[in-house]
Amino acid sequence: MPSGFEFGFIDWIRGQTRQRPEVALGIGDDAAILHVPPDAETLVAVDTLMEGVHFTFPEATPERAGRKALAVNLSDIAAMAGEPWGVLFSVCLPRRRGRKFAEAVFAGLRELADAFDVAVVGGDTNTWDGPLVLSVTVLGASTGRGAVTRSGAQPGDWICVTGMLGGSLAGRHLDFTPRIVEARQLHAATRLHAMIDLSDGLASDLRHLLEQSQVGAVVCGADIPIHPAAQQADDQRSRLDHALGDGEDFELLFTLSPEAGARLLAAPPCAVPLTRIGTITRERECLLELDGRRAPLQRGGWQHHLDS
Amino acid sequence: MPSGFEFGFIDWIRGQTRQRPEVALGIGDDAAILHVPPDAETLVAVDTLMEGVHFTFPEATPERAGRKALAVNLSDIAAMAGEPWGVLFSVCLPRRRGRKFAEAVFAGLRELADAFDVAVVGGDTNTWDGPLVLSVTVLGASTGRGAVTRSGAQPGDWICVTGMLGGSLAGRHLDFTPRIVEARQLHAATRLHAMIDLSDGLASDLRHLLEQSQVGAVVCGADIPIHPAAQQADDQRSRLDHALGDGEDFELLFTLSPEAGARLLAAPPCAVPLTRIGTITRERECLLELDGRRAPLQRGGWQHHLDS
Repeated sequence: MPSGFEFGFIDWIRGQTRQRPEVALGIGDDAAILHVPPDAETLVAVDTLMEGVHFTFPEATPERAGRKALAVNLSDIAAMAGEPWGVLFSVCLPRRRGRKFAEAVFAGLRELADAFDVAVVGGDTNTWDGPLVLSVTVLGASTGRGAVTRSGAQPGDWICVTGMLGGSLAGRHLDFTPRIVEARQLHAATRLHAMIDLSDGLASDLRHLLEQSQVGAVVCGADIPIHPAAQQADDQRSRLDHALGDGEDFELLFTLSPEAGARLLAAPPCAVPLTRIGTITRERECLLELDGRRAPLQRGGWQHHLDS
Repeated sequence: MPSGFEFGFIDWIRGQTRQRPEVALGIGDDAAILHVPPDAETLVAVDTLMEGVHFTFPEATPERAGRKALAVNLSDIAAMAGEPWGVLFSVCLPRRRGRKFAEAVFAGLRELADAFDVAVVGGDTNTWDGPLVLSVTVLGASTGRGAVTRSGAQPGDWICVTGMLGGSLAGRHLDFTPRIVEARQLHAATRLHAMIDLSDGLASDLRHLLEQSQVGAVVCGADIPIHPAAQQADDQRSRLDHALGDGEDFELLFTLSPEAGARLLAAPPCAVPLTRIGTITRERECLLELDGRRAPLQRGGWQHHLDS
């Protein structure tokens, strides 16, 4: 039901998106017709971003909002070590902001889509008197050894992360680069047991992985790579809290055997720094080791809450 | 980034959705892993429904809103004569309405998903202080002779519709049955040249099909099947306006050769009534014939508008 596309926005979008062999029929019919790669598993994820929750104006420009809506989805495909190839884009546009605003939102999304060779295969445009809402569905294909899930962590595994954590709200949450390339480099270099992207924050996302894998972990606080954006905090403890709980880092957390981990860190396959931050344990608790003491790692990630 | 699922809603959803062979890994990881049917084309469509635009409370219950969000997407797959098998469900939940409301929305969606044997393969839950927003992505497979698009109409084709049109706002827009079964029955019985579902209204949607097929049409006003819900209108002209422009009928409009059309109407393959309403023409204009006169058919469908 591409009702909103009558005002020409669909034609404007259609003329701008690149071709992919997977897309037999793109925007403009009731549904897109796809030829998914037959020799891979298909990956699909959806995320909705809302003005006032995931971005605010004027900190975010419309371009940055559109870019982020795609970036968080690409990060989900990265977390499976997959290759994204298609995206569907559904938007609730604030009527008063007009057509140029809508074009800017799409331009931000498209620039990132082009950078990762992702085709826009479908969408839905609506206008209303509410805030901007962006819903993106991404399609991808598994690569190499197959999709990496959250459920494969083994006791004894090293826990590693890409990049540095914390302080994303200073601006990085809008401009981060989804770790598509790095995930595939890691996946090609070694056998990853489990992986997740850090959206809610290390403390929360690690728990998701532990629950799915039915294992526990000890995280070494002193080893967590803290982003410069979180360094302004008063003390080391506060900086660590930022790294554990801020969320929206969109870095990757992964586990692998100690032997594979040692080899990987000795010869990193990607430019983004890799850091070991802990070890998977058989005991199903999640502990933080700091100053020689271990205590339960609180789920400090940013969370949504429903009343009642 | 299934952030909102931390409050247990994801587990509640996951425990309730049915299995499908296409779904190797469903809700609970960064992305779903799918094994799409290898001998068919994959169909995908997305639609976002907003409180205050596509449904209002209390006319809509949360169950009816959730049901409609899936139904409009199933209608898109029906318009391709496809078989839906999977759905992703992304929702912006009004915080103040609480968890039971969220469960009711999902229950409405799930009941329809179950009725058409569609698996919920992924989703995203968010809460905010705004209204309810439901974004659904549907995955399907082409059937029989392949997907039916909007672009295959030929001069001389009969134009037919399923069911009766107009008056959907009296309630049918929330409770309609997507014509999945009927589309496949038609597709199996004969060669459909082009098809579209009637979401914006006959006058608008026929134009989409004509533009995609690069043809024109003459529609016979007296032959349009008008729904009883539109019969309260003052005169025949008003009733016809309802049938042409109300939208949200979610019936199918299709074209086929005169020979195939005559055979089809002589022995309808489905229980829903089929009606010929006009003829495809080479001249690229869309005319309405009424009381022996022909005039351009105004695009009276319900449309969204952006300022500027």
